Amino acid sequence: MADWQEISGGVTAPRGYQAAGITAGLKPSGLPDLALIWSDVEAIAAGVFTTSQVKAACVDYCRQRLQAKHSARAILCNAGQANASTGMQGLRDTEETAEILARELNISPESILLASTGVIGQRIKMDALRSGIPKVVAALSETGSDAAAGAIITTDLVTKSIALETTIGDASGGLRQRPVRIGGISKGSGMIHPNMATMLAFVTCDAAVSSHLWQQMLSRAADQSFNAITVDGDTSTNDSLIALANGQSRTPAITEMGAEAEKLEAMLTAVCQHLAKAIARDGEGATCLIEVQVTGAYDQASARQIAKTVAGSSLVKSAIFGRDPNWGRIAAAAGRAGVNFEQDNLQIKLGDFLLLENGQPVPFDRAAASAYLKQIAADSSVVANGMTKGQRVDNPVIIAVNVGNGHGFGKAWGCDLSYDYVKINAEYTT
Amino acid sequence: MADWQEISGGVTAPRGYQAAGITAGLKPSGLPDLALIWSDVEAIAAGVFTTSQVKAACVDYCRQRLQAKHSARAILCNAGQANASTGMQGLRDTEETAEILARELNISPESILLASTGVIGQRIKMDALRSGIPKVVAALSETGSDAAAGAIITTDLVTKSIALETTIGDASGGLRQRPVRIGGISKGSGMIHPNMATMLAFVTCDAAVSSHLWQQMLSRAADQSFNAITVDGDTSTNDSLIALANGQSRTPAITEMGAEAEKLEAMLTAVCQHLAKAIARDGEGATCLIEVQVTGAYDQASARQIAKTVAGSSLVKSAIFGRDPNWGRIAAAAGRAGVNFEQDNLQIKLGDFLLLENGQPVPFDRAAASAYLKQIAADSSVVANGMTKGQRVDNPVIIAVNVGNGHGFGKAWGCDLSYDYVKINAEYTT
Repeated sequence: MADWQEISGGVTAPRGYQAAGITAGLKPSGLPDLALIWSDVEAIAAGVFTTSQVKAACVDYCRQRLQAKHSARAILCNAGQANASTGMQGLRDTEETAEILARELNISPESILLASTGVIGQRIKMDALRSGIPKVVAALSETGSDAAAGAIITTDLVTKSIALETTIGDASGGLRQRPVRIGGISKGSGMIHPNMATMLAFVTCDAAVSSHLWQQMLSRAADQSFNAITVDGDTSTNDSLIALANGQSRTPAITEMGAEAEKLEAMLTAVCQHLAKAIARDGEGATCLIEVQVTGAYDQASARQIAKTVAGSSLVKSAIFGRDPNWGRIAAAAGRAGVNFEQDNLQIKLGDFLLLENGQPVPFDRAAASAYLKQIAADSSVVANGMTKGQRVDNPVIIAVNVGNGHGFGKAWGCDLSYDYVKINAEYTT
Repeated sequence: MADWQEISGGVTAPRGYQAAGITAGLKPSGLPDLALIWSDVEAIAAGVFTTSQVKAACVDYCRQRLQAKHSARAILCNAGQANASTGMQGLRDTEETAEILARELNISPESILLASTGVIGQRIKMDALRSGIPKVVAALSETGSDAAAGAIITTDLVTKSIALETTIGDASGGLRQRPVRIGGISKGSGMIHPNMATMLAFVTCDAAVSSHLWQQMLSRAADQSFNAITVDGDTSTNDSLIALANGQSRTPAITEMGAEAEKLEAMLTAVCQHLAKAIARDGEGATCLIEVQVTGAYDQASARQIAKTVAGSSLVKSAIFGRDPNWGRIAAAAGRAGVNFEQDNLQIKLGDFLLLENGQPVPFDRAAASAYLKQIAADSSVVANGMTKGQRVDNPVIIAVNVGNGHGFGKAWGCDLSYDYVKINAEYTT
């Protein structure tokens, strides 16, 4: 069982953080578009960024900052313009943004991290940003997480937020166990707008942890969350995951792997998985979340590779939208994942329905399996007063694939492929 | 300029081949479903097969045959059942099929190659096949290519066929130049039917060429054709490309690379590219063919990798369907292809329109670029008497991407992503 509980507060749930989200006039829509996350003290900072060769200026900026110094106090994120494919001017804009914000916060620009989301090829509207920065600083509050979560979204239908709490302390030494919290917000990966980019996630933590270990934990957590989701296979120019750990929980410093470190990493992974699943569920036109569980592979990486290939298959995604228990497409996707296995060992389950055993189809109640898919889709929205108010990620369609007797297991998440995906992505005319 | 001319006749255009296609009752639709290609003499045989771990019995069968003996006289292909995920029984069915056909043709079963396409998880209807085999043998004719092309298709809207002719001979030695022909038919990669599999292509050639060289040529040609197309990224369980060379042109044997070998390989590649483009154009719901040309990469493989990633991007495909000159999606897809390049070198053209230069957008006539896309789509069907009679592959949407100063170049082909893709793949209820 999970060794933590869910709490409210998002990125401001951990001690010593404030956040804000305001409308700075960057988005043509007039919706909130500038978010700030602030730590009362300098925090250990780690990041995982897009592997694309076409990168936004803010990604280059953050990589340089984190290479020079593994700490930060503030993350500023604008929505509206991606500041990607903007050349040297884009980089100069990041430098200027950091300088303005640093003056306003009375800290060094080196303690500032930046993220952008919006239209590729467009510079940030610097005039609006310059006048917005003092306002977002003034709006900082210990209950500002929801405002920040609302200011980083673009084409998202819902905001994405989570906070978890556990206890850490040297129990054997008689020290009191103290609470440690991790919070997070995310957005993405909507690409409705032409050239619209980006998956973003920001995580705050009040544990005390060494920078080297924090980066390792974050990289591993990203592999099991953000790197295990697929909406349409398109990695963006701006994808960024940034995590701060400011030590304000006043728990013993974690500097090497061990029981406490594992507990913290497991909670960090759970936060990242929630945020990642929320992104997959909010895939354009999606009606449900799909979780692919792979077991019996040679190692974890192989298992995740198969899981991601199945979750990303257009044919599988269309079949789920059609509420069709189509094991053939699942088998075909698993087979082409680039991972060796014996097809005679292949087993496929959809929810509780066994569809394939020893590589061959078995009889199953097709109508009931289809009804299972319909039910999940029907339950996947949070409806209040007859209106769709949100999305659920706790009850995905489960596709379980076993490929042999290996110990490797892994998961990946995706969403179904509907008419609306094509509509959203084709009908926007520039 | 190409050193060959197009001729009629498909797989029976080269000397010494016959073909047939009949209705054996394998497809529920009652459409033709059994094809045979026959060489008057034992022909050198080469093959390229699916790399999926989940493979049809016919794929295992052909691999074994070609490993033991690099020649064949007949290719039998059924449509309706894929004979994949059918276990040992599926393999026994291939053996029995080969034996029946061998008796009927009075040759050894070892000279027979097999291919299947249809529903994954279903055995071939052996009763229908047993009674169909004598009929398809009786139907063999030197003008049977179109019948064969029609009997291998499943959800395809059109049949796919081509034949090219060049001359080969020892010109310096004073020998007369004689015609050499290569013909081909293909089908795929429709997957409308649940679990429907497969891209198939059969090529015949009347040149005399060593088996080792023929296999090398075919593998390279496949890399530049069938391995460079993408409809929905789903490799099937049954994908097969089989090529015969029977020497009936009576031209000098080609046993090593040189001018004549290069000429033959270039023509083989052209045949494969035509058949592959025809498959991409016939992608489910597609309204046009997309050709992505990449230059300036480190090597050919890198260039092809980028080209294929762009051609396979759901966002790029949706944008083309929306007639949207969306360079941002093209840049993002190129960037995530897993190939290193400097983004400041990136150049993108759509037809004659320069969209991106030195990694940054340039002003262009957006309405005219959109009109270019509309025009290609309008021209992509062959219309006669007001009815759509076929598809054109000679006038694709051209996306040209330059990533630097390297000498590597490559192409890939795909199609746009329309509502009909989702409709076809989701609405089929089992």
